[in-house]
Parts: sequence; C-alpha cells; structure tokens
Amino acid sequence: MNDIDTEIIKGIANQLRIHSIAATTAAGSGHPTSCCSAADLVAALFFGHMRYDPKNPRYHNNDRFILSKGHAAPLLYAAWAETGLFPVEELLKLRQFGSDLEGHPTPRLSFVDVATGSLGQGLGVGVGMALCARLDSLDYRTYVLMGDGECSEGAVWEAASLAGLNQLNNLVAVVDVNRLGQSEAAPLGHNLGAFKERFEAFGWRTEEIDGHDLEEILEVLAAVGLGNQPLVILAKTLKGAGISFLQDKEGWHGKPLSKDEAARAIAELQPTAKSGIGQPIPAPSQLPAPANTAPAAYPPTAYKVGDLVATREAFGNALVRIGAVDQRIVALDGDTKNSTYSEKFFKKFPERSTECFIAEQNLVGVATGFAVRGKVPFASTFATFFSRAYDQVRVAGISQANLKLAGSHVGVSIGEDGPSQMGLEDLAMMRAVAGSTVLYPSDAVSAEKLVDQMAAQPGVCFLRTSRPKTAVLYSNEEPFPIGGAKVLRQDGSDKVTVVAAGVTLYEALKAADALKGEGIGITVIDAYSIKPLAKDVILAAAQKTGNVVVTVEDHYAEGGLGDAVAGELSAAGVKVHKLAVRELPRSGKPEELLAHYGIDANAIVKKVKELS
Amino acid sequence: MNDIDTEIIKGIANQLRIHSIAATTAAGSGHPTSCCSAADLVAALFFGHMRYDPKNPRYHNNDRFILSKGHAAPLLYAAWAETGLFPVEELLKLRQFGSDLEGHPTPRLSFVDVATGSLGQGLGVGVGMALCARLDSLDYRTYVLMGDGECSEGAVWEAASLAGLNQLNNLVAVVDVNRLGQSEAAPLGHNLGAFKERFEAFGWRTEEIDGHDLEEILEVLAAVGLGNQPLVILAKTLKGAGISFLQDKEGWHGKPLSKDEAARAIAELQPTAKSGIGQPIPAPSQLPAPANTAPAAYPPTAYKVGDLVATREAFGNALVRIGAVDQRIVALDGDTKNSTYSEKFFKKFPERSTECFIAEQNLVGVATGFAVRGKVPFASTFATFFSRAYDQVRVAGISQANLKLAGSHVGVSIGEDGPSQMGLEDLAMMRAVAGSTVLYPSDAVSAEKLVDQMAAQPGVCFLRTSRPKTAVLYSNEEPFPIGGAKVLRQDGSDKVTVVAAGVTLYEALKAADALKGEGIGITVIDAYSIKPLAKDVILAAAQKTGNVVVTVEDHYAEGGLGDAVAGELSAAGVKVHKLAVRELPRSGKPEELLAHYGIDANAIVKKVKELS
Repeated sequence: MNDIDTEIIKGIANQLRIHSIAATTAAGSGHPTSCCSAADLVAALFFGHMRYDPKNPRYHNNDRFILSKGHAAPLLYAAWAETGLFPVEELLKLRQFGSDLEGHPTPRLSFVDVATGSLGQGLGVGVGMALCARLDSLDYRTYVLMGDGECSEGAVWEAASLAGLNQLNNLVAVVDVNRLGQSEAAPLGHNLGAFKERFEAFGWRTEEIDGHDLEEILEVLAAVGLGNQPLVILAKTLKGAGISFLQDKEGWHGKPLSKDEAARAIAELQPTAKSGIGQPIPAPSQLPAPANTAPAAYPPTAYKVGDLVATREAFGNALVRIGAVDQRIVALDGDTKNSTYSEKFFKKFPERSTECFIAEQNLVGVATGFAVRGKVPFASTFATFFSRAYDQVRVAGISQANLKLAGSHVGVSIGEDGPSQMGLEDLAMMRAVAGSTVLYPSDAVSAEKLVDQMAAQPGVCFLRTSRPKTAVLYSNEEPFPIGGAKVLRQDGSDKVTVVAAGVTLYEALKAADALKGEGIGITVIDAYSIKPLAKDVILAAAQKTGNVVVTVEDHYAEGGLGDAVAGELSAAGVKVHKLAVRELPRSGKPEELLAHYGIDANAIVKKVKELS
Repeated sequence: MNDIDTEIIKGIANQLRIHSIAATTAAGSGHPTSCCSAADLVAALFFGHMRYDPKNPRYHNNDRFILSKGHAAPLLYAAWAETGLFPVEELLKLRQFGSDLEGHPTPRLSFVDVATGSLGQGLGVGVGMALCARLDSLDYRTYVLMGDGECSEGAVWEAASLAGLNQLNNLVAVVDVNRLGQSEAAPLGHNLGAFKERFEAFGWRTEEIDGHDLEEILEVLAAVGLGNQPLVILAKTLKGAGISFLQDKEGWHGKPLSKDEAARAIAELQPTAKSGIGQPIPAPSQLPAPANTAPAAYPPTAYKVGDLVATREAFGNALVRIGAVDQRIVALDGDTKNSTYSEKFFKKFPERSTECFIAEQNLVGVATGFAVRGKVPFASTFATFFSRAYDQVRVAGISQANLKLAGSHVGVSIGEDGPSQMGLEDLAMMRAVAGSTVLYPSDAVSAEKLVDQMAAQPGVCFLRTSRPKTAVLYSNEEPFPIGGAKVLRQDGSDKVTVVAAGVTLYEALKAADALKGEGIGITVIDAYSIKPLAKDVILAAAQKTGNVVVTVEDHYAEGGLGDAVAGELSAAGVKVHKLAVRELPRSGKPEELLAHYGIDANAIVKKVKELS
C-alpha cells in the first residue's frame, strides 16, 4: 500500500463532498456538513485501505464498514457509487420515496449490514462482527466510523470495554471529531487527548491524527492489526470541511444548502475533485465461507407429561440440543446465565458463547453483529432488562436482523425480588418492534419447540420464559408452529373462552376444574404465540362462547396479551375482559402475588361467574 | 471527625452483616454476600461520615445515599434500623408480602429516594441530585454506592461524563469492588487501577482503598469535597467478607444461608458486633428549603384558531410560559433542543437547564434526580430515542418519580429522515410503565394545556409531539383535562366513530369532510389522553354509531391508540378497526408516507365505506 497516491484519494474525497452536497440539496434535507468532515477518512478507507469486492458487497471475507454516524448517509452512498456499484446519478434520488438511498442507511442496501441513525450503536455491532470473524477463522476486519457526539452514549463504552477485554485487534474505530453536535458544541470539543485517555482506559490502542491529512490517515491505517488491542483513530476534523463558508461553523447541523450555496460550494471543490478512478483493494484472502446452513431437523425433546421444569430451564436445554447439530447457534448473556440457563450452552460450547457482562445494550448489539454475519444468536437476560436495550432491539427490527432474544423472570410470579426484576412490560415493547415474533411458552415442551421455531424464523424473535417450575403439559410430538394456539379445554356448553399463556395458563386450568365442579364450562386456550396471534383459533373458540373472552396475563394491562387479543379480534365482535397486573407490584411469594394482583385461578373463577 | 472510633464502626459493620444474614435466611432468598462486602463502607458512611437527621430521612438538607447495587438492600435496611428509624426486629420481615422491606429498595420506604435493582442507574440519578443541590444552594452531598459488576453498564459512563464536565464535587461514588459477579468473576476483577484509569479519563478524582480498613475508609471520606471534581472511592472488598466460609468464594451470589450456615456465620461475627450505638452526624447546615411549590395558576396561551404551529414548538412555548411562574420547572435535553424546542427554555432560563448531550439514559436518570428533589423536570428528545432509556423510565415508574418526558418527531409524518428517527413504538412503551400518563396533542393549544396538566399530575408523564406544523383547532379557553377527549364532529346519523390523535386527527377531519359530501356522517374524536383513556366519551360516541369504531394512529399497530381503545372497550361491545403503520416504513415525504402506510384521509374514507 506504499504506492497509494494521496492526491487521488484527496480528489475522491472532494468528489464525495460534492455528491453529498448535491444529493442533500436535491432532497431538500440531510446533513451535508457531517459528510464533509468525514470525507477524507471515508475516501482513504474505501479507496486506499479497506479490502473488499465492490461488485459483491456481501462477500463473506470483505472488510466490513459500519457508518455509526448514520446521518452521514450521503457520504456512504457516494463512496459506493464511486466504487461503481451503482450509477452516481442515483445519488440524486436521496431520501425520495421508493429509493433505497434513505435518510439513514438500512440493509435494504446490499452494502449496509445494519441500520444506523440511532447514535452510539455501531461499535457494539462491530464487536459482534469482529468476534464472529474470529469464530469463523476469517481475516476480514471491521471498521466503525463514529461521530464525536455519539461517544457520549454509554453503549459506546459498553462496546469499548468488551472489545478491550477480548483484545479485538481486527476491530478499528474511527472517530470523526468535528467538534460540533446538533444543538451546540460536543462536550469534549477538539480535545483529542480526552478521547485518547478514555479509549486507553478501556483497553484500546489509540492514534491521534488530522482527519484531513491523507498522508497521516493512510499511515495510521497501514498499522491496523498490529498488537493485540482494538485500534481507535481519533481524527480531528472540521464540520463542513473543504467549503470556506461552512467549515467549523455552528448552526449548520442537518441543513441542506440552498441551490446557490451548493453551487458555490461545489465550485470550490470541483477543481481538485476526481471521479470514477477509485480502485478498491481486493478482499484479504480466499478463506472458505463458514457453513452457515440449517440442519434438516433438530433432535427431539424428551420430557414426560407432569414433569416439573421451568420454561427458562427448557430454553437452556433447547440451546444445547439444537446447538449440537447447528453450528449457526451462538449464545450471549449479560451475567445472568445461571438464571436464564444459557449457562448450559456456555459450558458445552464455550467457543460459541460470549459473556457480555452487565451491559444489555451491548449484549443486543453484539448479538446483532453475529446475526448479520450469518449466525443465529440467542441473547438472554431477565426479560425486563431488555428494556435497557430497547433501542437496540428496535433498530435490529429496522435492520431485519436475525436476532433471537430470550427473557426470563417475567411477571409477579418471580416473587420476592420485587418489581425492579419483574418483566411486566416486555410483551408491549417486543410486540411493537417491526417484524417481530413474540412467543410465550407455558411448559418445557412448548418452550423447546418454540426455540426450534425461532431458529428457523427470520427476524427479531422474543421468547418469554418464566421463573417457576411448571408441569409439562404436552407430549414430545406436539408441534408448536408460530402463529398457533392450543385449545386445552373445550365443551359445547362452555360459557367463556379463557386465553392465557405462561404461569396463568395453569391458573386457567385450575379455574376450569373448579368451575366444572360447579357446572360451569370454560374453554381454555394456550396462546403461546403472542405475535403473530392465532386469531382464527381464538375467534372460533370465542364464537362458541358468545364472543365472551377472558384474557389472563402476568404482565401489565397495557400492550400485552389482552390488548393483542382485543386489538385483533374486537372488530369481529369479540368481547375481551382483561385480567392483568394493574398496579405497581411489590415483593411477596409468587402465589400471594398472583392472588393479590388478580391473575390466579380464583380471579378467573370470579370473572367467569360475573360473565356467565 | 477525628474522634470517630473505628472499633465502634467496625462493630456496627459486623452487626449490619449479622442483620443481613439473619434477614435473608429468614426470607429464604436474597444476597447476603453482596451485603457483607459493602458492610464496612456502609457503616463508615452512615455512622462516621454522612450528615443527616435519622429521624427525618426526607429532610431537605440531609446528605443523600443511593444504593445503586440494590440487591444489597438488607444492608441498607439494617443501617437505617441501626440509626433507630425503625425496630431491628422489622428486618426479619424482609421480602414478605406487606413489608416495605422489599427484595430491592423502593421509595415506599421514607429513606429511599429512587428504586434500584436494575444495575447502573444510581449514578445518573445522583448526578441529578448533585446538580439540584447546586441549583438550590444547598450543601448536602450525594453518595452513590455501586457494585463493580454494574460498572459494565454504559449508563454509568454517561453519568460519569456529565459529572466530570460539571465538576460535581458534591457527588461521591463508592465502588464496592468485590470481584465476583452473578455468574462469574466481574470483568476487571480486583484491578482497581483499571477502574481508576476509567474514572480519571472521565474527569473524576479517584481514591483506591481497602474496603475493609475502616481507618482508610474514614480517611478518604474526610477529604470529600476537596477540589473541583467528583470523587470516586474504589474499594477493594471481598464478597461475603467477615465470614470464613463465604469470603471471596464463587457460587454464593444471590443465595441465602441455611439456618445452620447462618448460625455459624453469626457466631463468627457476634464477638465483635456492636448494635444500637451508632450516632449519625447531623445535617450539614440549616440552609432554607427551596420553595418547591406550584403557583396558583399558569398564564394563558395565546394562539389563533388556524395558526400553523407544530406541537413540538408549542411544547417549547409552554415550558417558557409555565417556567416563568413556576420555579420547580427545570428542562433537560439530549442535544436535540433545537428540534424539540426545549431550546426556548434553555435560552430563557439557563440556570434551570441541563444539556445532557447524546446520552438518553442519563438524560432520564438526571431528570429523575431533579424530580426526587422536588423539581418538575421536563426531559426532551426524539420520542423514539426514549427507547434508549426505557429501563430508566420503567424504574422511574417503580419509584413513582415525578418525571415529565416530551418526545418529538413521532411516526412516519417526520418524512425523509427514515425509520430510525420515527417514534412508532413510544405509545406502547410508555403505556406499559406503572402509573404513567400518556398524552398526545394535535394542536398547539392542547399541547400547551397538556404541559400544564403534566406539571400538576404526579408520576411519569409522557407528551408525544409531532414534527409537522398543524392548524390550531381550539380556543385558548378550552380545557384539556387528563383522561378527557374532544368530540369534534358528531351527528345523529353518523355511521362510524373515528378516534384519532396528532397528525391523524387532521386526516380524520379531512375524511369527515369528504364523506359528508357523499352523504356519510362520521363522528370524529380527538383522543389526546391515551392513558388514561376517555373511555366514557368514546363509548358514548361508539354506541351511537352501532359500536363501530375506527382508530387511526401514526404508530405501529401494536400497543398504541388502537390497542388502547380495543383493550378498554371491546368488553363493552365496541368493535375497533385499527388503521396504523403495519410494516417497516422508509424515507419519503410525510404525505406520501401517510398515504402509503394507510393512515391518511383516503384510507379512513375507504375503511368507513367498507364499514357503513
């Protein structure tokens, strides 16, 4: 790489600036000045350093690039256009409805692995990719371009910490320190030394450079991979760099130039700009692609009806069972693996296990990194602690990442630990993720079968598991397709259909027995698939009970099972009476709490009697 | 403080260990070893250093103590019992249903400001309290006891960064570095130097000590407040310290001792334990309490019907209007203040404004700190970025903190920026917070009036504001009580009731006009109060239109307005047809997106025709 002509790279950088300005002015919105600060860095990476096949952005051993500062999307698009992947004229369709050149990058584009635009998320995903490269014995590197402002996000330091601990020298962060945030100067200004101290304290090798000096940029890039630490390049830049009337000025964040301003800016850049001459360096090697293929089938489960097994433990068993035959399965946890039972997998397959410590945002970010490299990652923690990573889960939905989440310790049935540990909002949050699948098994067989289903189902899938041991209800042959439900009790004379899942299903069965003794029949449905919901099954049952449905859930009344059933079926005339947790709970024994918050068998009996 | 008898403090520490062991063994669950590691630190703080009135834990100038490692709750309870606040016998009711001595601390207890138990949240709240002490010219200090494991949480570093930038020398963090996490050793082990580098890089003064050496603990505490930096005390400790068969052993996290083990442990501790002799140091001074009282009324709004004003801008106007007469109002933002319009308040009342930069978890944590000190904090950012802080919002709900959140840029109506910036899940997540209030104004008058209501309404309140300018619909005299709704169009012959809020309300009004031309009447309701919902108003209207309701929302179909209406009213026979965003959206013009995703006037017209 000694023969890189820095004048050519500089010329390409100015062309990227021109593209970025022209595209945002055409769109009438966007962030041209945030593109200009990073243009030299991106030109150097794409045309003087990174190794990839520009005709095949998804080639398995290409170096990866994550634009964590996603608002500089036009710069990314311009770089790929200059590789020849698509015509530069397309750039003028930026932000138009129907163009995949959206306001912020999404994987609708072949050269984007993960959606960015919610700041501070790129580095965690990059850590996952770098770990995956190691697992797959591939020598591609992962580059993450970040803004200085986004380094205020804690997620950056969660990722930095894990990268340092794992000595990921195949991971490179580049911080475009342009000093200016959206509404005022970023907190550390141009103090590269402060960034340096922070990254070094988290175990990184650091380089401080002038982010507009191509010689310097290429020199530090040439030393990527040296040593056993991840590398961060701290680049002092100017927002709007290269345009005299924008450079380092406040008040220009997220503003396109007027046509006149754009013409003036482009006139300044044009003389030195170079287009159509960028020559990417080929992918580092022809190492074989990992065999990321699903097996024909997973081994069967082996429970006996009546066995007492917590669904969280069944989840751990399932991970081991499917992991044994499916090399795509990797597991991650946030220092709860002895509670979520992912520990079973960690012990059996340590090379495919990543302890992310108490850092749930990074847990989800790293898992997303594995997902976009072809693995099927299962990330587990207490269900309620996924609320810590809700933004990461949301963005994984936008990425349509193949992310599997297992959240344990749901509801008041965890008992004495109290409300801070109770998942009571997880159904609401997970249902509202684009393209998500939300599953809630009651027994060990269904829990295991749903893990199998999750591994086969694309996109973000969430499994809700419970702390208490519950009796196995189903035979090992019972199928549990996503979108299904099981009718466990039904008789022609039933008065009410009770829809439940998890621990409340057992309460519903108890209620059915009690009511039967009094001559009142109820239909009981196991709604193990919360999203998609088995509308047809529930509707058919409801219609046989005068459209009267009672839902019972160990979850707040908002956004969970009851709202799902009512939201899907009220239009068909179904009347849904929700039993759910309706106040802030407190510590106590599980059975005391189920009773006190009105979701136990007695509460169901009482409600059914009111309605029948 | 030179005359503190370290032998007495050591004796109290051992008594706190005994209490913690006895209470968790009686409860049959809990974290005794996590209590033992911090017992000397807590004994020194409570009986040799902190200044407070033990009879009045809420006294305005008491030093504050946050147990960020909330699982050590029994230790906290034991310390307060030893101050004499309540009988030590109460400790044996730990974790029992009905006792406020829950598994993790909540503000049901007079000596707890905020719920803890979701790790890594205490420091952000502490930053808010320390900033509030400055604002109120009070000389109390804020102490945050953290575990080493929780320092993996990014939220800790968001808080550390802001504390360093603000030179909060009235804030003291104590890290109980006991080396052992829940499922394995914490990542940095006993490497105090690594913690030191990290905190120093974030602008803190650091002290490394032996956390079981009372002389050393008291010595570094004596120097609290020196210099202009926040102080972190890094204490090397042993999990289970003081008990020979527990100390520094793996496998003891979150496990109570058996009765026999407890007896052996207590026998080891008893000879040196001292009970009932702790003497807290009085509060630092008698500085006057801030006048945190609401004014009799807020000034009126001044809009004209038909004016085009975005609700986000009305929010900013409202903050200034009420902030001028209500000193309790403080504002915080995450570097979006020129988009959320909180900038108006920042410019007018800089001393009551806190820029939290791009760190939403800390934004909510700091706001919570202000809330528990009697202020009425309004924290603002894009609605979807509150998903980054969902765990903090959830825990603020458990704390029943008086937290006000304003989220802008909701739904596809933001247009070109694309899905990463669109709030499409915020109603679902905010509805599922314990005791929350969720408001969604359509015009400037209702937005401002709802800000007034939020300031008066206790607990977590969320205001959903929109990016586009919308026409003022209401007169300045119109009241907007929480739990209400406005019927904007209604006629005896109406076929369908359309319930909308925000930008879709205008689409509903357009649809009403279009349908009227075709002889079809619809009732149009502005459901500005999403939680609590105006069930009575909507039900009464629905019953006049044959129970046929169409909901229209710029939000995903899950957990939002449609689910709220269906979930509340399907039991009464109301049939809810939901129009909502049902797929992952993309960039485009707002009107293109409202049309494409089926939530514009045409979509309403089509649906109404299907139904009538």
